[in-house]
Amino acid sequence: MNYQRYFSRGADLMQESAIRKMGTVGARVPDLISFAPGYPAPDSFPWDDFRAITTDLLTAREATTLQYGPTRGFAPLLDALVGVLAGRGIAASVEQLLVTTGSQQGLDLVARVLLDPGDVVLVELPTYTGAITAFRNVQAELVGVRQDTDGIDLVDLEAVVTRLRAQGRRVRFLYVVPNFQNPTGLLIGLAKRQRLLEVAAKHDLLIVEDDPYGELYFSDFASAAETRPIKADDDEGRVVYLSSFSKTLAPGFRVAWVAAPDEIVAKLEIAKQAADLCTGALDQRIVWQAIERGVLAAQGPTLRALYQQKRDIMERALRDRLGRTMTWPEPRGGFFIWTRLPETVDAEAMLVRATAHGVIFVVGSAFYVDGAGRNMLRLSFSQPTTARIEEGVRRLADAIHEELDLAGQGVGAAGGGASRGTGAPRG
Amino acid sequence: MNYQRYFSRGADLMQESAIRKMGTVGARVPDLISFAPGYPAPDSFPWDDFRAITTDLLTAREATTLQYGPTRGFAPLLDALVGVLAGRGIAASVEQLLVTTGSQQGLDLVARVLLDPGDVVLVELPTYTGAITAFRNVQAELVGVRQDTDGIDLVDLEAVVTRLRAQGRRVRFLYVVPNFQNPTGLLIGLAKRQRLLEVAAKHDLLIVEDDPYGELYFSDFASAAETRPIKADDDEGRVVYLSSFSKTLAPGFRVAWVAAPDEIVAKLEIAKQAADLCTGALDQRIVWQAIERGVLAAQGPTLRALYQQKRDIMERALRDRLGRTMTWPEPRGGFFIWTRLPETVDAEAMLVRATAHGVIFVVGSAFYVDGAGRNMLRLSFSQPTTARIEEGVRRLADAIHEELDLAGQGVGAAGGGASRGTGAPRG
Repeated sequence: MNYQRYFSRGADLMQESAIRKMGTVGARVPDLISFAPGYPAPDSFPWDDFRAITTDLLTAREATTLQYGPTRGFAPLLDALVGVLAGRGIAASVEQLLVTTGSQQGLDLVARVLLDPGDVVLVELPTYTGAITAFRNVQAELVGVRQDTDGIDLVDLEAVVTRLRAQGRRVRFLYVVPNFQNPTGLLIGLAKRQRLLEVAAKHDLLIVEDDPYGELYFSDFASAAETRPIKADDDEGRVVYLSSFSKTLAPGFRVAWVAAPDEIVAKLEIAKQAADLCTGALDQRIVWQAIERGVLAAQGPTLRALYQQKRDIMERALRDRLGRTMTWPEPRGGFFIWTRLPETVDAEAMLVRATAHGVIFVVGSAFYVDGAGRNMLRLSFSQPTTARIEEGVRRLADAIHEELDLAGQGVGAAGGGASRGTGAPRG
Repeated sequence: MNYQRYFSRGADLMQESAIRKMGTVGARVPDLISFAPGYPAPDSFPWDDFRAITTDLLTAREATTLQYGPTRGFAPLLDALVGVLAGRGIAASVEQLLVTTGSQQGLDLVARVLLDPGDVVLVELPTYTGAITAFRNVQAELVGVRQDTDGIDLVDLEAVVTRLRAQGRRVRFLYVVPNFQNPTGLLIGLAKRQRLLEVAAKHDLLIVEDDPYGELYFSDFASAAETRPIKADDDEGRVVYLSSFSKTLAPGFRVAWVAAPDEIVAKLEIAKQAADLCTGALDQRIVWQAIERGVLAAQGPTLRALYQQKRDIMERALRDRLGRTMTWPEPRGGFFIWTRLPETVDAEAMLVRATAHGVIFVVGSAFYVDGAGRNMLRLSFSQPTTARIEEGVRRLADAIHEELDLAGQGVGAAGGGASRGTGAPRG
């Protein structure tokens, strides 16, 4: 049978996630070093704490631990989330919270509740691929806004909104990752966050703020104070805030949450009823207990030190081996180094060559809604061990030098190395 | 701020699940007996097995146990599902399987991949509310097909398809729950399943077969052979089959699956990438080990005996206290008794009165896409203890008699009691 004729228009337009596709590649090639997915380091998971918690939960036999639960989320976890948010400067009541099955579900629900086909979502150039997919799947149009070294360019934002509105387009919201953006690792400056709220109010935009990496700042380039969410100063109720335990506890639990105005959360809840009824009951309780027992709090310093060290090792290896070929903005936190190759290099072709050398990454174009980024690579240092990071960069350098040699450019065609925060990528 | 203007058309049309709403009511009233949600009995969960499995998994510290995983599902679980399906007569390869975050997600993904706004889905009268919500959320139109005592009325099915096609409507698929349907508890006869496949081929319909209750047959009215899925005889590849571990292991894990032709599964996988990336990693491994260690197999006989006993107790109590007022088809498996009150009774009003008496149910109209079912109640016997079932029916009888007395009808206005499979509900 030919099934094509049964598919919806939405299905016709659906695109496979570039990152997920890389995961599939990674599973097939032996001894491959993957800089592709933003997976946390599994040795950082608090295994013993999780085992103790789970044993206690399953010994207690409290019926709801394995039962269907409220769509909003497990009530004690919601209470704990109020505390987690307060620690980030956000005053949210339980009525303003929804537990989601990972932040990807939060993005999907936001898309379904706020977007009609043809509506416009504004995103940074570049932006997170999972958000692109979620918004495109409801047939929204994504329009890019340029970035500066301190995040989104507000002048360009206003110009884009004004132009689109003049064309009669419905611009619904702006999607941003202010803390250690995926893929650039950039941080939106505190003053700029305030101005962003003002711009949103002026143009009547909602802001969807995605904050998975806020806890993972690197002390040499950023402080906890600099990660204060936009939502913390959202007096007007314009910000839909998403965060997750995937990077601080473990992604396998699929526990994340949304904090937004009551009316929006009420709609998101109804959308979630149809999407999966409720998030996993045991998973929610493990996360709740990890908060209550101080496991989450203890993870913060550990993870910051761990990922800062991994960033150091990847950066040093890149400088040593590719410093005259690549440039990148200094990551101030998070999981990624966002690298730029000479304009002539095509990252898709490079990926084929790199796979043959036993290393993979995500091509830059996956993060751009305007077709740019063809010479950019996102390198994730979060999951591999330090030895594997060094070996992976060696393989990557071999692949890149081979490509450049074949193209007759040799090493040194592009200058630079780490650009230390100047010259943000524009693709 | 007024958020109404920010919502999508889809969000405007979203309706809160009647069953989920009842769950919220249930959480607020003290000492309430709930016959509303189709929750399994928590004392039937194999707690000790789950604890042993989880301890082993978290002791082993295998990195993927708490990591992001493949969207398709954890490979060893997919392999195990091939075996589970073979036990039901379904020959499916791994390429034809997708793990979903509960079957509700399966319904949601099917809706997104197969339905455009305005497309028609055929459903039984009555049908499962979660399916109604998932299909309505993509702005499909749901059209009802009548039921006989042995499930969907094929004459009516053909008449409905022919009429809709003559009107130029795009009829995409038929949704059915052949085994112990939610809400009626009915079973589609084996011969009728064959004819249903023929009708689907004749009219070029896909069939979405939802089978959460197939293992839960009651030996006095049904046998394992009678639960053979439609999918087992789907030589042409017209059936998208959904099933779940929520009723056999525990719902809190949110692990279910879809078996469908490769091309459809490939699309569902892409839709799932945007919906939640992947189903919980620990949850999938617990289910996998429950299959491998024989826990799932051991649950079958235990659960059949347990729910058959609960059905007996609820039926006896209903016959004793409401046998002259209510009728119902004999449930042959599953979780529900689907009761009919005299035409004059409005279930919504009854629900208010019943809540005051300390018992709740789901109103019949929630299961009908044509506005019928106002005098029907779905009573779930699965979760309450036997003592609570008896007490709940006593409260329900008090509420119903009070309502009928006030309406001047008294007891005995409608005859009947258990209709033992004759006279299926038509609303």
